[in-house]
Amino acid sequence: MLSFNEALEIVNQKINAVVYPEKPQNLYAPIQYILTLKGKKVRPVLTLLSCNLYKEDISDAISPALVWEIFHNFTLMHDDLMDKAEVRRGKPVVYKVWDENTAILSGDAMLILSYQYIADISSDKLKPVLDLFSKTAMEICVGQQYDMDFEKRLDVSVDEYIEMIRLKTAVLLGAALKTGAIIGGAMPSDAEKLYDFGMNIGLAFQIKDDLLDVYGDPDVFGKQIGGDILCNKKTFLLINALNLVCGADKEILLQQITSESIAPETKIKTVTDIYNRLNLRAIAESKMDVFYQKALNSLHSVQVDDCKKTVLADFARDLMKRES
Amino acid sequence: MLSFNEALEIVNQKINAVVYPEKPQNLYAPIQYILTLKGKKVRPVLTLLSCNLYKEDISDAISPALVWEIFHNFTLMHDDLMDKAEVRRGKPVVYKVWDENTAILSGDAMLILSYQYIADISSDKLKPVLDLFSKTAMEICVGQQYDMDFEKRLDVSVDEYIEMIRLKTAVLLGAALKTGAIIGGAMPSDAEKLYDFGMNIGLAFQIKDDLLDVYGDPDVFGKQIGGDILCNKKTFLLINALNLVCGADKEILLQQITSESIAPETKIKTVTDIYNRLNLRAIAESKMDVFYQKALNSLHSVQVDDCKKTVLADFARDLMKRES
Repeated sequence: MLSFNEALEIVNQKINAVVYPEKPQNLYAPIQYILTLKGKKVRPVLTLLSCNLYKEDISDAISPALVWEIFHNFTLMHDDLMDKAEVRRGKPVVYKVWDENTAILSGDAMLILSYQYIADISSDKLKPVLDLFSKTAMEICVGQQYDMDFEKRLDVSVDEYIEMIRLKTAVLLGAALKTGAIIGGAMPSDAEKLYDFGMNIGLAFQIKDDLLDVYGDPDVFGKQIGGDILCNKKTFLLINALNLVCGADKEILLQQITSESIAPETKIKTVTDIYNRLNLRAIAESKMDVFYQKALNSLHSVQVDDCKKTVLADFARDLMKRES
Repeated sequence: MLSFNEALEIVNQKINAVVYPEKPQNLYAPIQYILTLKGKKVRPVLTLLSCNLYKEDISDAISPALVWEIFHNFTLMHDDLMDKAEVRRGKPVVYKVWDENTAILSGDAMLILSYQYIADISSDKLKPVLDLFSKTAMEICVGQQYDMDFEKRLDVSVDEYIEMIRLKTAVLLGAALKTGAIIGGAMPSDAEKLYDFGMNIGLAFQIKDDLLDVYGDPDVFGKQIGGDILCNKKTFLLINALNLVCGADKEILLQQITSESIAPETKIKTVTDIYNRLNLRAIAESKMDVFYQKALNSLHSVQVDDCKKTVLADFARDLMKRES
């Protein structure tokens, strides 16, 4: 059985070995740039590990694994432009290093490139992976659209938020795992359970992400605490706060969101205090745990020796414990 | 045999019958908007006509035909944003009706949608069409990149220009025809010849387009004569002018391109006069004719009854004669 780090090593090797056409440089250089940024490369690793549950030799899963990494970075390249982000994995984003048109066009090329990697899949498995990929890719567009739509709304429900993060981030983990299962020759029911495992881990992971922004350890987190609060990002915490807050706190919260003259540290403290009074940390941790337990149940019911599943169970546990 | 207009009727019916998910509206409404703009829908029609050379029943070619129309409109949605265009087929472009992010994300969704239509193809033909599609889509990105790169250069050679328009526009016509041939069950050599027919028609068509901007009949053309001249667009005429001009005209031409204080009508007249002195109209018409003849030769060698090929030959002739 491959360990997480062994799988990561394979992914990194393959990504670093990709040979890009020399010309046009402005099209391919940004692709190489974003793909070789330091990152956890969780998605392709999950494809390899999932395949490895069913087959010792995971070589057939390498191209399908890269599909998810290339696709994920395509979404980052376009999302960073849409969200006007500045930094990605500690480096300036593509549309800043080059320009906006480059981010659009190189992103388009990456989406096509992902499909070119899919075309390498053997003919008996091509169609199911192609369908899974397109369905997932479309869901992620839908999730990004909801995320942008939610920016303009103050009445987003918790269910809407969960559905948004399911589409925008969670299905990608599910699909990466399911791809590995398909390539490995898993029964359809196992492939579906691994999908559910990934999707629920993705949901838990996103809530954890929202929590860390507010309750993370500043020495470990790596980013400024309260970044989401400052830009009024519709996180699990803010959505819940907007739904639960009442009385004086409601006015205070709305003022914090709408006013542009509040000092950053004041805003972070004021909003965090409201979150605390609403007991949102516990609510979020409890919701996170619901998804984590669902994920573990799905993994548990996969018809494979328990010892083989340890690597995925450990991965899930580490994600829940992460502090950065 | 289907006529061009019968094929167009089928395409229009199918495009108008596409049912989009209701939500998120901001993702799907722009797709419906751009796909239902009045347009010639040449590419899907070519797929149907090409298939019809080999099969009476073209129903299997309908989804693959729509692939090319959806894909083509994806490129328009992103190109209009990159090129800061205002109007497309007489209507405001998507990023003006909605916003830039919408044009990016709905465009992405259209690219994925094209692949979803490809997945409908029967399994024995899926892989060749998938490969053709991805190769062509990537070539079109490369062509758009060259086009943008050329904007900043004054030393583009005629060969570089031809290669750029081949990638950016001509391969798409070739691929639409080849797709129909594959679906129709043509011999690979015929599929290749139909590809060459389309590609060469595309090259001739683009040079015709460049010519019409300067030498078109203002009453028929529908757009302002000299629009390309005003925005210094690197057309076949300007590229040739930059390569051929010398003496006093060279200084005048460079001044026209670089100065921003010249009155539009003066600029159009001055540049057109230089084109005339360099005999560029004849040079362009001659180059156009070379590609047109190559196209006809390719079509001629397709192993199908001549009477069946009339519809494609007529289409090519009409394109060469078009005045708008």
